[in-house]
Amino acid sequence: MPTYKAPLRDMRFLLKDVLNAEAALSELPYYTQHETHSADLADQILDEAARFASNVIQPLNASGDAEGCTVQGGVVTTPAGFKEAFKQYAAAGWTGLDGDPEYGGQGVPHVIGNAVSEMMIAANVAWSMYPGLSHGAYTALKAYASDETKNIYLPKLLTGEWTGTMCLTEPHCGTDLGLLRTKAVDNNDGTYSLSGTKIFISAGEHDFADNIVHLVLARIEGAPAGTKGISLFLVPKFMVNPDGSLGERNPVVCASLEHKMGIKANATAVLNFDGAKGILVGQANRGMQAMFIMMNGARLGTGMQGLGLGEVAYQNALAYAKDRIQMRHEPRITPAEAADPIIGYPDVRRMLMTVKAYNEGARALAMWLALQIDVEHHHPDAGKREEAADIVALLTPVAKAFMTDNGFTNTVMAQQVFGGHGYIREWGMEQYVRDARIGQIYEGTNGIQALDLLGRKVLGDGGKKLQKLSSLLTAFVEENEGNEELESMLEVLGKAAQQAGTLTMVIGQKAMQNPDEANAAAVDYLRYIGHVTYAYLFAVMSKAALEQIVLGNDRDGFYRAKVQTAQFYYAKLFPETKTLAATIKAGNGPMQVDDAAMFGVERPLVTA
Amino acid sequence: MPTYKAPLRDMRFLLKDVLNAEAALSELPYYTQHETHSADLADQILDEAARFASNVIQPLNASGDAEGCTVQGGVVTTPAGFKEAFKQYAAAGWTGLDGDPEYGGQGVPHVIGNAVSEMMIAANVAWSMYPGLSHGAYTALKAYASDETKNIYLPKLLTGEWTGTMCLTEPHCGTDLGLLRTKAVDNNDGTYSLSGTKIFISAGEHDFADNIVHLVLARIEGAPAGTKGISLFLVPKFMVNPDGSLGERNPVVCASLEHKMGIKANATAVLNFDGAKGILVGQANRGMQAMFIMMNGARLGTGMQGLGLGEVAYQNALAYAKDRIQMRHEPRITPAEAADPIIGYPDVRRMLMTVKAYNEGARALAMWLALQIDVEHHHPDAGKREEAADIVALLTPVAKAFMTDNGFTNTVMAQQVFGGHGYIREWGMEQYVRDARIGQIYEGTNGIQALDLLGRKVLGDGGKKLQKLSSLLTAFVEENEGNEELESMLEVLGKAAQQAGTLTMVIGQKAMQNPDEANAAAVDYLRYIGHVTYAYLFAVMSKAALEQIVLGNDRDGFYRAKVQTAQFYYAKLFPETKTLAATIKAGNGPMQVDDAAMFGVERPLVTA
Repeated sequence: MPTYKAPLRDMRFLLKDVLNAEAALSELPYYTQHETHSADLADQILDEAARFASNVIQPLNASGDAEGCTVQGGVVTTPAGFKEAFKQYAAAGWTGLDGDPEYGGQGVPHVIGNAVSEMMIAANVAWSMYPGLSHGAYTALKAYASDETKNIYLPKLLTGEWTGTMCLTEPHCGTDLGLLRTKAVDNNDGTYSLSGTKIFISAGEHDFADNIVHLVLARIEGAPAGTKGISLFLVPKFMVNPDGSLGERNPVVCASLEHKMGIKANATAVLNFDGAKGILVGQANRGMQAMFIMMNGARLGTGMQGLGLGEVAYQNALAYAKDRIQMRHEPRITPAEAADPIIGYPDVRRMLMTVKAYNEGARALAMWLALQIDVEHHHPDAGKREEAADIVALLTPVAKAFMTDNGFTNTVMAQQVFGGHGYIREWGMEQYVRDARIGQIYEGTNGIQALDLLGRKVLGDGGKKLQKLSSLLTAFVEENEGNEELESMLEVLGKAAQQAGTLTMVIGQKAMQNPDEANAAAVDYLRYIGHVTYAYLFAVMSKAALEQIVLGNDRDGFYRAKVQTAQFYYAKLFPETKTLAATIKAGNGPMQVDDAAMFGVERPLVTA
Repeated sequence: MPTYKAPLRDMRFLLKDVLNAEAALSELPYYTQHETHSADLADQILDEAARFASNVIQPLNASGDAEGCTVQGGVVTTPAGFKEAFKQYAAAGWTGLDGDPEYGGQGVPHVIGNAVSEMMIAANVAWSMYPGLSHGAYTALKAYASDETKNIYLPKLLTGEWTGTMCLTEPHCGTDLGLLRTKAVDNNDGTYSLSGTKIFISAGEHDFADNIVHLVLARIEGAPAGTKGISLFLVPKFMVNPDGSLGERNPVVCASLEHKMGIKANATAVLNFDGAKGILVGQANRGMQAMFIMMNGARLGTGMQGLGLGEVAYQNALAYAKDRIQMRHEPRITPAEAADPIIGYPDVRRMLMTVKAYNEGARALAMWLALQIDVEHHHPDAGKREEAADIVALLTPVAKAFMTDNGFTNTVMAQQVFGGHGYIREWGMEQYVRDARIGQIYEGTNGIQALDLLGRKVLGDGGKKLQKLSSLLTAFVEENEGNEELESMLEVLGKAAQQAGTLTMVIGQKAMQNPDEANAAAVDYLRYIGHVTYAYLFAVMSKAALEQIVLGNDRDGFYRAKVQTAQFYYAKLFPETKTLAATIKAGNGPMQVDDAAMFGVERPLVTA
């Protein structure tokens, strides 16, 4: 059975040596005022969270997968222990960790909350989604709901008495929400009656909490077609009286649960709204805007699933590789035994280091972005807020897609280290593969993330946001010129920043003639930008590690390993950009084929 | 629910237009004598097999996965319908299709048998493994058993009355069979008594057949340690009397079945041998040699799983992409509808064509190799036999690893086309992913295949076998010089052949200093050779297709699509070689890291 130990050493390295988070957070009055900016507090929180993840949640991971969720007459039962663990989590205050103290939250910085969420995911991703979805609902309500609504709902979400959901997808539309049909009829009493069917609703119904707060996209009768006629509603499972006490059961019912490849312990519900009462959140017909608030958080959160699952898969593959003896290495490693531990073989080391490097790149990206989100929300200087917001907007789709794609291949590679045993349920590795797979699909498929990056974030503003990222890279290269130990990385990085600009221009020019060119290049482009970003972060981390080595602080070799991991990344993983540059340049031409001949489609789809 | 239609058009293209199989088989007296060489017969067989696969086996695929196998008191129950389908398969003569007529087989060429096996795999891979394992046992017995044994056992295997297994792995050894402990005690009456535990035995126990013929690797008491002390034994489930009738139950018992990620309808048994009686097959202490006969067949067969699953996943993803409408393409494709079919978007086309191209490259490699196996076994000219044997030896690990790696990513990509629905069990796509995953692991992990290719097949004979492949490529390039339509492919191919040679020399020189260098490069090297081989085959296929176009034979556009698929392959998939060349050159250095710091290992594993 797998085990999990939170990577506290790496988290602290990022917070202290790389990001200097305490200093950055000290510039944000919101945190200094609540006295939540200090490194000491962060340390305590991370220690506590690590214990909770390993001792309470992780032991339920395999049993939760085996048991799954069941529904009978609309009542959902979650796996044994899940409900109790959530009560314990809520009682310890974790549900309100980075919530606003005005509503009973603890006001802890997002960068710390995000690290905590990595641990919960790694320990038990299906379980972690119940509080995760609540957090998304909290964020959207906080941004768009009326004060009255906020005063009633936010405290309940932060205590964990109630949980939340996001109800977007319908059977005929996922990516294309403009097609949605769920209808909202104005009752002319401040409420609406919603009717329709929503599918794929994570944590959509369960036995954790007294009430469930559904945030639902629907179309008010008579609203325009497409996304411009979509509004956001709050639809509680139980109606809520003005004093916050629970009223009648609202007709929003779990019709069934999906049978899925993984995350089986999370209840993925089909919800029927049968005239369920709701209230409008934000303005009518502006639901997409509010949805994106939830969605951006959910996208980073999904990216974190790639990291958390990659990390726990790595830890267990490493343990197996040290333990399993097979074949004899030349020269022998453990000559007293019949064979040598497989970690001695370069190909096994290659697999382990690949997983490790992608995890550490992901953690650096996630921590950096989370801190930028703190700055975006709370910096007193508008220019700083905008700068942070641009980086967050640009890199959110990268974090979602690059981290989940690598997270999936990481779990597959970690499983491979186990040989045949990796395919057997009891070893637990195959569950990580099944659980990781969904990250590439939901909250906007990774193909959609790529379009968001290239179309909206890069070409959509004439490359201004991308320019900000490039400036960071080139500034780093210039600042560190002459640093011999970083020299080879800087050279690669400088060229990469340049090539990223060239590739963007090439695509941009083609896309002006034919929008299909952007669509054709998007996925490869996102991967390219992901690699450039990781290369930057590995160089930054190497610099920080080298400084500590010079200071004589590397007794356990952590910093040396960090530099070696960075060198491995540059030598073995970053070269994927060579292929990506070639396939980006190849463009849409290779896909402009005869539809009848190639796909058996009767009409020509593409006019070549 | 998924459907499957055998790709007969592509199979016939390969057999007729590309390989000219009838002519090649006409040179092999074994087939002309049995009158099994003709294209007409092949057509009939493929048509019949296609019907059987789609109508009988495919409908049991999802239910078989859901039901799985169960064991009680050593008795295994397979999913509903599995046994009956096997009886029907056997009654129709499929179990003896490419068996020797001397033992009741039909003497059909291997190249046809292999195509039939692709269909059975695509329709239901877990089911297909029961006859697949029997075929392996048949092959080993035919090569190494005494005439007496062959006369009793081979006809029963070919009629399907009995089935076979391969019993290699033990709990502490898979890759490293030299460590195996199963013991054989000579009874001095022509039999041995075997004791030990074998794990991961596919089709190891079931309810399909009257008897199961286990081929077991074991160590005769007093035999040398390591692989030089391993012998192969035939251990029947029921003892067999000299007249072929069944005797006592032999104490080889299914202790349990594994719970697996996929191929759940195949019974993966833990078998306890408790003084089970067996007879020696081949010479004492020469078991590894006989094992490799089975293993080479099994490796190609495993490669075929990558192809079959990739093909069925493709067909269903294509159907979904034509049916699902989402977002609006510019210009609109189906303006009368609210949205356009997703097959119109370049990124969806990219995914579909990637899967299609890897499938078609795999089918070309498999068919070519299968025909080479026919030549290797039956050509009257020893030189031709050797030439064919060299290509088969060289490309068997490539077929196993490259076809299963691509097969797995193909199923993942096809699943991605479905968006969220791909994650839901009822759509069937997630089963293909789970079923495909094992191909990369069993019959020697793909890492082990890579070592076999680079260490044994390439460096082991000083590059002679590789030279034969290179010669085919360069000859093709020279022969077709001036063919304008092939020009760009020929240019790439010529350079690739050259670079393959250079990379091999680079690795070879480094490996002479340090064997770890071969281990470090092997996996990337195999992928490189895989791409070079597919590039060659796509050029050969393009040439054949272009000839048919010139002849005016392309009414349905099949040949045009083939050329466009080849162009897509060269533009979008082959460029992976750019990355591989770089990572191969990066060598073992990046993995030579500090073990204590990097992996928390106390002793240094690698002396840098």
